[in-house]
Amino acid sequence: MNARVDRLRETLPERLLVTNPKSIEYLVGFKSSNAALLVEEERVCLFADFRYAEAARSVVGVEFVETERALLKALARRLSGRLAFESTHVSYATYETLRDGGLELVPLTGTVEALRAVKERSELDAIRSACAITDVVYERLAEEEFVGRTELDVAWTMAQLFHEEGSLLGFEPVVASGPNAAKPHSRASDRVIQRGETVVIDAGCTVDGYCSDYTRTFATGPLSDELKAAYRVCAEAQREGLEAVRAGVTGVDADAAARRVVDESDFAGAFGHGLGHGIGLEIHEAPRLSTESTDTLVPGNVVTVEPGIYLLGLGGIRIEDDVHVTEDGGENLTSVRKDLVEVG
Amino acid sequence: MNARVDRLRETLPERLLVTNPKSIEYLVGFKSSNAALLVEEERVCLFADFRYAEAARSVVGVEFVETERALLKALARRLSGRLAFESTHVSYATYETLRDGGLELVPLTGTVEALRAVKERSELDAIRSACAITDVVYERLAEEEFVGRTELDVAWTMAQLFHEEGSLLGFEPVVASGPNAAKPHSRASDRVIQRGETVVIDAGCTVDGYCSDYTRTFATGPLSDELKAAYRVCAEAQREGLEAVRAGVTGVDADAAARRVVDESDFAGAFGHGLGHGIGLEIHEAPRLSTESTDTLVPGNVVTVEPGIYLLGLGGIRIEDDVHVTEDGGENLTSVRKDLVEVG
Repeated sequence: MNARVDRLRETLPERLLVTNPKSIEYLVGFKSSNAALLVEEERVCLFADFRYAEAARSVVGVEFVETERALLKALARRLSGRLAFESTHVSYATYETLRDGGLELVPLTGTVEALRAVKERSELDAIRSACAITDVVYERLAEEEFVGRTELDVAWTMAQLFHEEGSLLGFEPVVASGPNAAKPHSRASDRVIQRGETVVIDAGCTVDGYCSDYTRTFATGPLSDELKAAYRVCAEAQREGLEAVRAGVTGVDADAAARRVVDESDFAGAFGHGLGHGIGLEIHEAPRLSTESTDTLVPGNVVTVEPGIYLLGLGGIRIEDDVHVTEDGGENLTSVRKDLVEVG
Repeated sequence: MNARVDRLRETLPERLLVTNPKSIEYLVGFKSSNAALLVEEERVCLFADFRYAEAARSVVGVEFVETERALLKALARRLSGRLAFESTHVSYATYETLRDGGLELVPLTGTVEALRAVKERSELDAIRSACAITDVVYERLAEEEFVGRTELDVAWTMAQLFHEEGSLLGFEPVVASGPNAAKPHSRASDRVIQRGETVVIDAGCTVDGYCSDYTRTFATGPLSDELKAAYRVCAEAQREGLEAVRAGVTGVDADAAARRVVDESDFAGAFGHGLGHGIGLEIHEAPRLSTESTDTLVPGNVVTVEPGIYLLGLGGIRIEDDVHVTEDGGENLTSVRKDLVEVG
């Protein structure tokens, strides 16, 4: 009936209360900020409050139960016995509510996330479409004037370009120029972009709920030798990272392949975050590519490969592609150029 | 030194680990998706990973400690003894991590949220500015053509209008037309707006991080008698709700004042959500106005007042203003007209 729910059932030690909204969307196609899905051996119950009731009634293959707005409190009254719950998506306060209702609770982590990490054809198609749009947007972006405009104004241009290409920004874009580019998670600010600096632009869109996530770094006119060298090292680290991505490789090893290039250069230590992460219904999901990862890549994963070099006070570089993991290697879904592009 | 941290300390039974990102932003002005703030009697420690390190070093009045990306795991190793934590903002899995590190954990709820619910002058000024922009945007929106356009296209117009008025959408706007308007949390879809129906538009912007949150319901040409009657009842319920809002009134009583109007009309039972919620750094925060609320209004609260009437298959109405709570009553921060406006 529902293949995703069936696959989930095979991995469950207990009936599971799914509370991560994106996992509920994945399993039964229902979007809500206040819902829960109870997956039992013989049936699936969807709980939501009045605001979502009309939409919930049209979900196929589930029994819908309307609850009060305080949904988990209502479930604590209704349910009893043993129940697995998503312990990374249930707050301690909610855990207390369920426990005090007399439930015997079994914490589980990463169960639905592990299914979501392996994309089906339809999911891959959606990500491919999001990437195709993002390719065009970044090509058009390279024709824009940057110098003299604020980062916020360039961020708005990204919103417009995605709209014109038939999609929407998937997240608030990073537009980080000059010294701001040394902060990996800088937001767009009212800083005016100057000549001769790097501008890191991290953005993506969604198609049918599935995300793309790109980063390109532009030069506003000729760069200092140090920034040019950093760009070359970052690009080489990204090539090595892309080369390493294939089924069977651990997230730690993929990360290490790229990190080695930076750490053997003059920029040792300047790549301060992980190499990448899964993308799908969420912009950050399993698997992770980092020094702290516990994941091993499998066919059907879609991950970002995004080394960066951050030079305090000077600027920064990041280059990010989206990659589909196969047995033989990585299929790069990103085709926009990634040599150093000068913009006006 | 930091008046907000000082006020927080007065209410704390223990040193507190703050993990709600908006509460960290409120207390020390630092924005991050991966940070924690330890508020002790004599000092305040800010923990964040490499990506936020440069920004964290410039935060005044805190000791900054850079940690691994797995921040709470790092804290479990560093800290010991008794520690209060925000139990609605810490997952059960994170609780386990901290507990297994040997910490003696004390769950707390609503502590920083209670401070945030009482706005200072500077916060009120930001919300006033956001409301002034939103007034202009809704006035301009009433001059747009609706019929024949998709909901998504109208949602894009909202993004453009906020941009032109110098702000950004604070959240994905609701544009719900015809039968979609019967779903209180409908998203904008590719449905083409028809003549003679209601279009519910729920949107707002942010100024200095503070939100506005408005809803107006437009008519695309003459409505059926039922929808016209529903609009009149909803508007009357909103007037009663606004009248009820003042310091000392409970969230339950404010909600009841508006709900009575709907429940004594032909539309009894059709107002299926709460009357309103606090706004501030978050679009939904304390206090709540609803049948399930445990809050009592105090001067300095800013709340929405937003009754709705939802008629399955036919359409819906919602009217929402933002209100500053004073001793004497509610100061309505929203000035855009709310009689039934016909659009083309």
